This record gives sequence, structure tokens and C-alpha cells, in this order.
Amino acid sequence: MQMPEPDQSILARKARIVERLDAALPGRVIHKEAEVRAYECDALTAYRCPPLAVVLPASTEEVSALLKICHDEGVPVVPRGAGTSLAGGSLPTADSVILGVSRMNEVLETDYDNRFIRVQTGRTNLSVTGAVQEDGFFYAPDPSSQLACAIAGNIAMNSGGAHCLKYGVTTNNLLGVRMVMMDGTIVDLGGAHMDAGGLDLLGVICGSEGQLGIVTEATLRILHQPEGARPVLIGYDSNEVAGACVSDIIKAGVLPVAIEFMDAPCIRATEDFAKAGYPDCEALLIVEVEGSDAEIAEQLEKITQIARRHNPVELREARDTDEAARIWLGRKSAFGAMGSINDYMCLDGTIPVNELPFVLKRIGELSREYGLEVANVFHAGDGNMHPLILFNANQDGQLDLCERLGAEILKLCVEVGGCLTGEHGVGIEKRDLMSHQYAPADLEAQMAVKDVFDPKWLLNPAKVFPLDASQTRRAQGIAAE
Amino acid sequence: MQMPEPDQSILARKARIVERLDAALPGRVIHKEAEVRAYECDALTAYRCPPLAVVLPASTEEVSALLKICHDEGVPVVPRGAGTSLAGGSLPTADSVILGVSRMNEVLETDYDNRFIRVQTGRTNLSVTGAVQEDGFFYAPDPSSQLACAIAGNIAMNSGGAHCLKYGVTTNNLLGVRMVMMDGTIVDLGGAHMDAGGLDLLGVICGSEGQLGIVTEATLRILHQPEGARPVLIGYDSNEVAGACVSDIIKAGVLPVAIEFMDAPCIRATEDFAKAGYPDCEALLIVEVEGSDAEIAEQLEKITQIARRHNPVELREARDTDEAARIWLGRKSAFGAMGSINDYMCLDGTIPVNELPFVLKRIGELSREYGLEVANVFHAGDGNMHPLILFNANQDGQLDLCERLGAEILKLCVEVGGCLTGEHGVGIEKRDLMSHQYAPADLEAQMAVKDVFDPKWLLNPAKVFPLDASQTRRAQGIAAE
Repeated sequence: MQMPEPDQSILARKARIVERLDAALPGRVIHKEAEVRAYECDALTAYRCPPLAVVLPASTEEVSALLKICHDEGVPVVPRGAGTSLAGGSLPTADSVILGVSRMNEVLETDYDNRFIRVQTGRTNLSVTGAVQEDGFFYAPDPSSQLACAIAGNIAMNSGGAHCLKYGVTTNNLLGVRMVMMDGTIVDLGGAHMDAGGLDLLGVICGSEGQLGIVTEATLRILHQPEGARPVLIGYDSNEVAGACVSDIIKAGVLPVAIEFMDAPCIRATEDFAKAGYPDCEALLIVEVEGSDAEIAEQLEKITQIARRHNPVELREARDTDEAARIWLGRKSAFGAMGSINDYMCLDGTIPVNELPFVLKRIGELSREYGLEVANVFHAGDGNMHPLILFNANQDGQLDLCERLGAEILKLCVEVGGCLTGEHGVGIEKRDLMSHQYAPADLEAQMAVKDVFDPKWLLNPAKVFPLDASQTRRAQGIAAE
Repeated sequence: MQMPEPDQSILARKARIVERLDAALPGRVIHKEAEVRAYECDALTAYRCPPLAVVLPASTEEVSALLKICHDEGVPVVPRGAGTSLAGGSLPTADSVILGVSRMNEVLETDYDNRFIRVQTGRTNLSVTGAVQEDGFFYAPDPSSQLACAIAGNIAMNSGGAHCLKYGVTTNNLLGVRMVMMDGTIVDLGGAHMDAGGLDLLGVICGSEGQLGIVTEATLRILHQPEGARPVLIGYDSNEVAGACVSDIIKAGVLPVAIEFMDAPCIRATEDFAKAGYPDCEALLIVEVEGSDAEIAEQLEKITQIARRHNPVELREARDTDEAARIWLGRKSAFGAMGSINDYMCLDGTIPVNELPFVLKRIGELSREYGLEVANVFHAGDGNMHPLILFNANQDGQLDLCERLGAEILKLCVEVGGCLTGEHGVGIEKRDLMSHQYAPADLEAQMAVKDVFDPKWLLNPAKVFPLDASQTRRAQGIAAE
């Protein structure tokens, strides 16, 4: 698509904004066209748009100074963690400034007595654990992208991970934040221990996808490392039976750290790719438990008892760390394996655990109807599904067909009482599906919350809410200025 | 105090309001003076005021009808669960209508596959567990008043209990609510499973002390009952050492279900009263662990190892259920024991766990300074303290002295990084202490949230916020009508 020639007044405005930002934050501003291109997309690479400028502040005070200028000029601001969003959560608009937190990655405080760490939010997820692991602690939420993704993005999307069945997702491990409002005001929410005072606005912030403020510092719960962990691999001859087994484990009150689910298309692709020695069956579960040797033995005993009642075609307990590593090898290679043979779109619906057998069956039917294969590999214990729709991006019409199938599957998740997204967020990807989950009054209520935090609708524009609704809101914000 | 004669216009207004309520909700309205007296106070009995009327609706729709009338007439509404608030959370004002949820106590849905129960919020805490215990499940938060207190009040105050160290407080076990706004609008927040969609407004509602809406239905997480539980009794010769032991247990990552703490004044009063066989020492810990026999043995091994490093004067593991019951007997009798020998005021400050030794020492000094004995019995694992100030209500000036000492202790909690309240709420009791914890801008931000939910400031008036601030807000609401 050819871009229209920008008119002089837009260029003058851009120059003025860049000049003001550069004066306030010398050395932090990137505005040359070739350089801002590096920020034109996140991990949802199908959508791209270079921003007006990029600013990489190094402190809460610098974030405040930046936001004051943008607020004053009416410039939209797009927050960016590490740019790993699969939902376009940090996709720029052409008139926006990207606020990247990558320079803000310091550990500010560790307190083992009260089990917390306070960090700047540009710090990567894995390096939070890295800062405390020599002392025997870890930070629990573990998104697959944990090597790269920033705590800022984890908070924005309320990220989960394989171990969140036991330890909860980001919101369950976040104790407090320092946040900068769009007008530059700095606020502290929550604290470093239980029962921090005041209204729990932390819950509203966590998962709000950068719509309400810029979180610059986070106080995170850290946990003592378990003594050990051991996985068991369980194979079944149907998705439904494997789903029923998951449901029974949850119902029995056993709390493994992870219950991972892979279906036949995923098992076969993974086995070809990683040679993990998986059995050729319809559905595989990897259930991992943690604790001392006695605790591990006892939990595995309960889990294998439940598993046996469903007549597994394979039941393999890891006897040593080598075998444990082989069991996890396949699961950890699954996305890579799928990517090596196909283009795919990764969905992120969440459903009630007891609906797993029905939803898996229905996805199979939809897959046949649309003529596109769907592979399932996901965190089954908490009902967070990740159907991968396989398609050929070079074949005309396939991306469109894939997007329509994806929408059908997400609507199915909502119909059974679930939700459009578990951990990836709505972003731009699912904004127009929001009206399938929410009545107009529900969406209006959510937008009224944003009105309070960001009356001009400048923060992370054109995301989360249906596009027409958020554009109307933004226009009202401009009219009120 | 003699009440002034009410003038005719007030009487006419009252008659009109009662008539409208009675027409809309026949049989649900109590307005005779002798009958409304039953609702003039809650468990903070030092403060009393009969309301204008009491309404006991039986459904969400009836609550909505009631609120619409009160909204229309500008009548304040005071929500009431079971009236067990220790902070005056449901104290009426003379111009208010009490909205009691006691008729709304049905179980609406139980779902063991997805581990939740949906109830009307007038249901008592213990009878939620009662509804699922035959099937092997329980509802975890267990306030001391659980036999009487309603889920509505638990949500309003974000109630905890002895078992909340492991299972979290109400907010960690609340999945969704149906709530009626002051204008009668009915909204659903959260859902029945992980990652319910939309902004997490549930966090703001839980603990908001009836300031934002009336919660009529709640979806609660239920858990599988543990196989067994066993307490250990540990005695030390100083509060500081016992506090250090608690801190070390938490730091080691062991997660008992309960760590209860009793100091010498409490131990002696309790022993005289209940004859539980406690040793005569300065500080006692009761640490309880749960699970299978193997899990219990392993956790107790770790805990007793830590306890021994601090040279306990007593370390007694329960060998059977009789001995377990005797260990708990004293703790459960503690409040009764104190009440049998003294008037007391029960505080509810929360502090970082590692500050326990310092705070206990400082409370001792303040106690000597004010000449009033303070007994400590509390949930030590999560830093939620319950200092009991002993005084003689019949002696002039003692209540006032007691209140001043209470304020000093709560300010101390705030100074070490803690909070005025852990689970009892602010209510009317601590409203004027709020400005010690919060800067004017913080309070303003909290009140701005209330502005959104309840622009006329009609819900649960004169509580939570400093009285002058909430009265100003209410006056602005009247002016805007």
C-alpha cells in the first residue's frame, strides 16, 4: 500500500513533539524513520505500522515527564515491554509515541523475610528468578517467552504459564505497582505484603493491556524453590477421555504444578521434529508434581490411580532427570515443530475445565468443516487452550479462512462459559470479537473505567475494545480538549 | 442523650418512603420503632443509632427495586450481612434504610468438576462449607465468627481467618459476583473459572465495605478436603524469639495452614479459663499442617527443625485427635477468656511478617506507658495482628484512654509498612485514622472510585473515609441532584 504524502502541518507537529521530547529526555528519543521501523510490530507480525517516535526512558520520573508532554500535545502513547505480544498488544499507530521500558531493568529491593522482590518493569521474567535463585527462591509465573518477555508486559496481559496451575497467574503473584497516569501523576497501588490498604485497584491494572497507565515498578511475590519435581506421561486413545482424566484430577483436589495436553496432530509433528519417544496415540498428558521425594511419590500415586481408571494406552513415570527431560522435550518443542512444517495461528481461549472433552470434539468438527487442521497443545489444568490452526500463508484466501475458523473457535469458548483470552490479551487481534463476549452495557462499563484513568483515550489506542467504540471515545476525548 | 423532636416534614418524608418501599416490597419492610431497634448496632456495640427503616429483600430483583426507590428519594442505604462487624461496618444513620440480606441464603449452583459454588450472599460462611462437605469439599476462608457471619459481610470486609495463610483470604477465593448498583442496575463481575474476561473489578468490590454496590450472589472457589491435619504447640521465653521463628518458617517456604500466636497475658487468661494445659511461658505458637500422613510428617519435621534452632521451652506435637483438640481449645477460647475477666478492644492491624518482633516489643512499651494491659492473639503467618487492649468500661476515662492507645498501635502498624486493618475493615471505627495511612491525594483517588459507582454517596454513609471528607462528598451529591 502506498502511503499518502504527509502534509506540512503534520510534519511540523511531529517536529515540535520530537523536539519537546528530546529537550525533556535527552538521548532517550528515537525518531529517524529507519530506526523507528524496529518498533513497527510485535510478535503478531501480520500487522505493522511505524510510530511517530520511540522513547526509552530510564526511570519513573522520565516516564512521567514523557507522558506529561504527550498528554499536553494530545499524542497517543503505546506502551511496549519486550514486544513479544501475540495479540498485537504493542502495535503502534502512525500518530503515536512508543514508550519502551527496556532500559528500566533494575532490581530495586529483595526481601526474603517477607518473600518479595521489587523491580523495574523492563526486567525480563526469567531474570527476576535469576536475581533470587542463588538464594533458593523463584518467581512463579512462567510464560513460554520468559527468556525475552518483560514484567511490564506480563502485568499488562496478566500472563500465565505451565506452572500457573499451582502458583496462579501474574495477578496472584503481584503485590504492588508504581504506575504513571497519562497526565504524568505517579501513584503507588498495593504494597509488599498481605492486606495492603485501600481499594484493590491492582486487580484492575493487572491485565488491563496498557489502557490505564504505565507500570514502571512492580513488587512481586517470590517463592521458595521446591526440593524436586517429576513428570508423568499419560497417553489416551481419545481427546475426550484425556479431557475427562484432567477434570478428575482437578476434582480430586490434587494440585500438580502443570497438566499439559497434546493431541494427535501435535504429538505426530512433535515426534517427527524432536524424537522425544512419545507413543503414537490420540492424546497425551504431561502431569508434573513438585516437592520432597515423599510428596512427589504420594501425589504421583494419586494421579496414576486416577489415570488408570480411564484405561491409558501409556503411563510412563520419569525415573530420573534424563527421562524427565525427555518427557518435557516434546512439549517444549511443540510450537517449533508445528512452525517447521506449517504456518499457524495460535489461539488463546479459556474454558471451564469440565467442558474440555466437548470443546475438543467440537474443534475437531470445525476443523473438518473449514478444511484446516487444528493442533492442540495447552495448559489443560486451568482450561487455558491454545489451538494452533495450520494454514499456508502463501495460498490466497487461507489466512482469511484461518481467521474465520479462529473466530468460530473463540466464540465456542465463550458459548461454553469461557473467555476469548487466557493470557495473550485482546490487543488488536480480538478487539472486534469482544462484542460476542460482552453485551453493550458490559463494554460500556469497561470503557467507563478507562474514561476515569485516561479521559482523552490516549493510552494504547485502538486496542481491546471494538474499533468503532474506541474511536468514538477518542473523538469525544479530542472534542473535550 | 435526649433526641430533639422530629419536625413534621421529616415525619412526612419518612412515611412516604416507607409507603413506597412497602408497596414495592410487601412484607419485606420493618419500620416500627421497637422493631428497627434490633438493627441499631452491629458487634461494635459502643455505637448505636436506629435507622429510618429496615428492608429484608429475598432476591436480586427485590434489592434492585429497593435501591431504585432509595436512589430516587435520596435515602442512604446501609447494607447489613449478619451484623457481626467489629468495626461498625453496618451501623445505621438515622436517615438511612438498612438493607439486610438475611433472607437471601439459597445455594444456587454447585459444580464439583470446576470446583465452585454459587450462593446468595445472606448465606452464612459455615453453611457454605455445610452445603458441600458431604461430597468432600470445603470453602476455605474461616473468620472466627463463621457460624454467624454472612458471605455478604465476608466480601465487604475481605475476611480472613486462621486457615487463610495457606488458602488466601476472601478475595483469593471469590470468582464472581452479581451486584446491584445504587441506581438499581444489576451487573455481573468475574465468572466461575480462571481468566474471566474483562477488567478485574472484582478486586475493587471485595473489601470495599459496601461503598460501591450490594453484592447479592457470589461464586466461590471450593476445595477438596485434606486427608488430615495436625497441630504442633511451640513455646518460647520471649515474643521476639517466637516472632523470629514465625519469620523463619515463612522464609523457608513451608506453608502451614495456620500459624497462631499467643503472648503471656493471653496464655495466662486462657489457661485459667479453659485449662488447655498450656505451658507458662512468654509466647506460644500453634502451627498446623494439612495433608496425607506422609505430607504431615514431612512438614512437621521441617517446622520442628526450625523451631528447635530458636531454643523452645516447649515443643509438643499432637499424637492424636484428642491432643490436637486440646491444643486448639485454648486458642479458640482466647477471646472468651479475655472477655470473662476484662472489657477489651480488639484491634486488627497488619504488618510485614519480619516486623513482628519489633512491633510486639513496641506494643509492650506503649502498654506500660498508657497503663493498660495488651494481650496478643493473632494469625502470625500473614502478619495480621489482633492486639486486645484490656480496660474497665465502668471507670471514667478508660474507654477514651483505650481508644488513644489503640490509635497509637495502629499508627505503629502503618509506620512499619503495614495497614490499619487486615480483615475487620475500617467502618466507622478507623475512618479518622485513614489520613495517617493515606496522603490527601491517595484518599481523593479512593473517593473518586466511589464517585463513579455511587455519585450521590448514598451507600453505607459516614464510613471508611474521614468523616469530614465523606460529608463534603455527600453534600456535593445532594447539590448535584
